[in-house]
Amino acid sequence: MAEGSISTTMPSYKLTYFNVRGRAELARYLFLAAGRDFEDYRIQREDWPELKPKTTFGQLPILEVDGEQLAQSNAIARYLAREFDMAGENSWEQALCDQTLELINDLIKELVAAELQKNAGEVVFPKFLGIFESMLAKNGKYLVGSGLTVADLALYAVFDTPLQNVPNMMDKTPKLKAHRAMIEAIPKINEYISKREKTDI
Amino acid sequence: MAEGSISTTMPSYKLTYFNVRGRAELARYLFLAAGRDFEDYRIQREDWPELKPKTTFGQLPILEVDGEQLAQSNAIARYLAREFDMAGENSWEQALCDQTLELINDLIKELVAAELQKNAGEVVFPKFLGIFESMLAKNGKYLVGSGLTVADLALYAVFDTPLQNVPNMMDKTPKLKAHRAMIEAIPKINEYISKREKTDI
Ligand SMILES: N[C@@H](CCC(=O)N[C@@H](CS)C(=O)NCC(=O)O)C(=O)O
Ligand SMILES: N[C@@H](CCC(=O)N[C@@H](CS)C(=O)NCC(=O)O)C(=O)O
Repeated sequence: MAEGSISTTMPSYKLTYFNVRGRAELARYLFLAAGRDFEDYRIQREDWPELKPKTTFGQLPILEVDGEQLAQSNAIARYLAREFDMAGENSWEQALCDQTLELINDLIKELVAAELQKNAGEVVFPKFLGIFESMLAKNGKYLVGSGLTVADLALYAVFDTPLQNVPNMMDKTPKLKAHRAMIEAIPKINEYISKREKTDI
Repeated sequence: MAEGSISTTMPSYKLTYFNVRGRAELARYLFLAAGRDFEDYRIQREDWPELKPKTTFGQLPILEVDGEQLAQSNAIARYLAREFDMAGENSWEQALCDQTLELINDLIKELVAAELQKNAGEVVFPKFLGIFESMLAKNGKYLVGSGLTVADLALYAVFDTPLQNVPNMMDKTPKLKAHRAMIEAIPKINEYISKREKTDI
């Protein structure tokens, strides 16, 4: 590349998933927050058996970057975050983002376990709402560092379904509520969620 | 730092966990493979209640880097991998490493589910052994790129306990067996595992 010139070659991104939020929504939020174009390809259930053997591990989501396939929703999210400068300002902040993504995995795991015992509402949600509220109390507007990261978007995404089911869930955690409003004020995210088809998950 | 000078200040690392392999062994392997010093602090169960409230999420492992705390075993592993140049050669390879760490999470999740149905041996292990065998068939000696990464060490670590219980588990996956032998030939890892106290997990 000649000195002083700016590369105009953007990689082409194609995200393939089912027509739900599920495990692809975080990647979609990353594209939207970064203002980057991508193909949001939503496969019909009846077309899945044909595609399945062509995917890396027989599952979705997959991301194709200039035709190269990447599987695993969290690997996709972290990759996009690095590409779009939403992975923290240095390796330590990247680790703190990661720490939050892993905490969110624990939340999901505990929810699955708790649903078997029908106590998700009483035990798991209060515990994790409390953890996130104090993380925000400690760090400020964002979860990590001083700018928007994948950790903020992951926190936002994981509460999409719980809040759909229990809308007042964040009434006792004002910082978390404000954090959510902050994400929803990002213009492209705002536009997207206002038009998004309503799905259960 | 003056130009031409080399910094000799190495960060100090302290890894705290219980006296088992468990969720800390991958971090230990990373230190050993990189030939980096660290304090391998193994807390007694009776001392845990006192330490617990001082940890980020009330759980172990934690890593302290010059006194700053990082929680979540996989966040720790990925951070150390980046610091020690075992996270792939670029962001895409880093994503491929990540993809493997997430696949290993799926293996663990499916094992937990299968143990409830007592079919881990017949279903989960053959499936994942097959996936890893073909990844090695495709990429060669290492799982990602052309050098040792956190993905290789994570693959090694996740089979420690299964192989302890079923030693012939890899008899039908020769590439996986050779991969394991390759890791065990790393001098510091070799020395460590030959002296390691035997534990169930
Ligand atoms: N750990 C994987 C799990 C992927 C996964 O479970 N995908 C499901 C949909 S959410 C799937 O592809 N199901 C269809 C199938 O397995 O055939 C990830 O996070 O991407
Ligand atoms: N997702 C966390 C899970 C950590 C975890 O479950 N730690 C367990 C030991 S393996 C623990 O600290 N248990 C004691 C406790 O919760 O009080 C990680 O991977 O680090």
